[in-house]
Amino acid sequence: MALNMVESKEWYLASYAAEGVPTTEQHLKLRTVSLSLDSIPHHHVALQTLFISVEPYIRTRMSGHDDGLCLSQYPLNQVITAFGVGIVLRSKDEKYSEGDVLLSAFLPVAEYCVVPSSAIVRKIDPAAGIPLTEHLNCLGLPGFAAWLGIHVLGDPKPGSNVFISAAAGAVGMVAGQLAKLKGCRVIGSTGSDAKVRLLKEEFGYDDAFNYNKETNFDAALSKYFPNGIDVYLDNVGGKLLEAVLNHVNLHARIPVCGMISQYNQSWREREGVRNLLNIVGKEVRMEGYLVGSYLDRFSDFAVEMGSYIKHGKIRSKIRFYEGIKSFGESLGSLFSSSNEGKVIVEFKPQPSTVKVAAP
Amino acid sequence: MALNMVESKEWYLASYAAEGVPTTEQHLKLRTVSLSLDSIPHHHVALQTLFISVEPYIRTRMSGHDDGLCLSQYPLNQVITAFGVGIVLRSKDEKYSEGDVLLSAFLPVAEYCVVPSSAIVRKIDPAAGIPLTEHLNCLGLPGFAAWLGIHVLGDPKPGSNVFISAAAGAVGMVAGQLAKLKGCRVIGSTGSDAKVRLLKEEFGYDDAFNYNKETNFDAALSKYFPNGIDVYLDNVGGKLLEAVLNHVNLHARIPVCGMISQYNQSWREREGVRNLLNIVGKEVRMEGYLVGSYLDRFSDFAVEMGSYIKHGKIRSKIRFYEGIKSFGESLGSLFSSSNEGKVIVEFKPQPSTVKVAAP
Repeated sequence: MALNMVESKEWYLASYAAEGVPTTEQHLKLRTVSLSLDSIPHHHVALQTLFISVEPYIRTRMSGHDDGLCLSQYPLNQVITAFGVGIVLRSKDEKYSEGDVLLSAFLPVAEYCVVPSSAIVRKIDPAAGIPLTEHLNCLGLPGFAAWLGIHVLGDPKPGSNVFISAAAGAVGMVAGQLAKLKGCRVIGSTGSDAKVRLLKEEFGYDDAFNYNKETNFDAALSKYFPNGIDVYLDNVGGKLLEAVLNHVNLHARIPVCGMISQYNQSWREREGVRNLLNIVGKEVRMEGYLVGSYLDRFSDFAVEMGSYIKHGKIRSKIRFYEGIKSFGESLGSLFSSSNEGKVIVEFKPQPSTVKVAAP
Repeated sequence: MALNMVESKEWYLASYAAEGVPTTEQHLKLRTVSLSLDSIPHHHVALQTLFISVEPYIRTRMSGHDDGLCLSQYPLNQVITAFGVGIVLRSKDEKYSEGDVLLSAFLPVAEYCVVPSSAIVRKIDPAAGIPLTEHLNCLGLPGFAAWLGIHVLGDPKPGSNVFISAAAGAVGMVAGQLAKLKGCRVIGSTGSDAKVRLLKEEFGYDDAFNYNKETNFDAALSKYFPNGIDVYLDNVGGKLLEAVLNHVNLHARIPVCGMISQYNQSWREREGVRNLLNIVGKEVRMEGYLVGSYLDRFSDFAVEMGSYIKHGKIRSKIRFYEGIKSFGESLGSLFSSSNEGKVIVEFKPQPSTVKVAAP
């Protein structure tokens, strides 16, 4: 029987972080639980976690108050969940077999878990020629968010002037490349000179600037957009959005994917945007979106993006954090300027080394 | 020859008003000019002014800086122009004859004027059963703005919860009635108890509140919108918009027609909206619009609105100011809470008393 028990480390929410970046001293804590792989319920699977996708929305679910993204708060003392990829150890669902690799939208940030089949998004074919981690990246939530922002809501034309903030983040790096594939002129903002180079050299951005260096955003946008901005994919909000509203062209579109500058304060402490009147004069359409409302478009997206990946038309960069212990640090990295590309926690040991008894 | 000269009083811009309401002491001044009706150029008409439409955008053209509405600033020492109705005294355009009543988009705020035909929007048929002033009101700019906000951009469904600010103003009074005709639940905000009564008793609003009395906008919206807001026609901006963003339903729409609370400050002094993140969580579409971009829809609008007016389905209220001298005061009234309905300056004397020589 002991072989059917595993010791599993997991991250749980010890207390809400109303402001600031959640810390592993106070808010997010690691514990070890014993998990039985024997008696799992019907329509459930036992998984070993391979990869966890680290996303900004995770932080907004730890604030303990309505956060503006309208996502439910994580319950206190419960394990955190996230998008992730796991391998099936035991299955009580005929759709899944031992060894299947599954994508889950609500995977516990834990080494092992038992989840209901309703938490599974789909089975992944490891032989299909697409790296597993791309299902959390270009083919996952960030890639889909980028595609919706560019193809569906922003809809730039060839030659349009496109601005993307948090451009070296998971959404931004894909969005910029999609806009380039449409023939746009694409400029990004990001938090370090290294990432400025990354955007220009790896992701094909026409230009990019470091907002920690060019802190006068109005001046920066005047320089990089002498002909104004047609589409702004907003991942940041706050003062950068305000600056953009001084540079928009007539009928500009602002798909709002997120506002990462705003996640670590309660809304009354946030930076107000003072020039919304420009929305009238320039007849701007600003529209927020959540990927969950566009699931009917996912298969169109997956076909297009899968083709881009296979043909090398979209490049991606992943910053791997190793092992369950690194999750707290990996989440914090999203709110610093240090992070490049998509953040993923890679779990060790590898599945082949896992010792579980046959059922 | 003397009979072909008229003395004409006109308002001109003596200095820009960067902040506050323009005053007749400093910014807006009246002068008398002599106008020859003899030698008017080809494709021009000489008009006697009957009515001038007083609109908030006029103030934004007096600030001397880019105002957010992207309208050109009035040149200093030149006569102010506005939408208005005049009667033809002399015509050097074969399309117009003496006695024709014309609608102009750039009518000088003057007793008499000579304008190019390009400033004429259309000829009005006084015998068509629609009061002349409705061409500046329900059938004019405010009515068209209301129709675009409700029918084209807001697009509420029967039973939708619709909120309209500056509801007793020229746009608001029409917009609320259009939303009621669509079967919506309509609530308005306005600046006095008398106007609250007007909205409920004359314009068929389901309810309304006085923002000078119910100054906690969040509490007011909780009370009047227990089921949230589906469409907000924004005429005000600022703190009321911020409060609305705390009460929007999923996929709410916010057509932004204007932001009258914001016109009397430069943008850096304006109130910032701090909770734009709600646009993401509630997937709100906020879209500014100017009527000039929708002229292809004007004839649809005019047919529909003309029918409503003739069949008594839309009521209107006009606050008349009498005589050219009252223009300064009439403009100031838009930024107080005193004004009810559409503001129009009615010119005296009546046309029949005008003494001009035959050509």
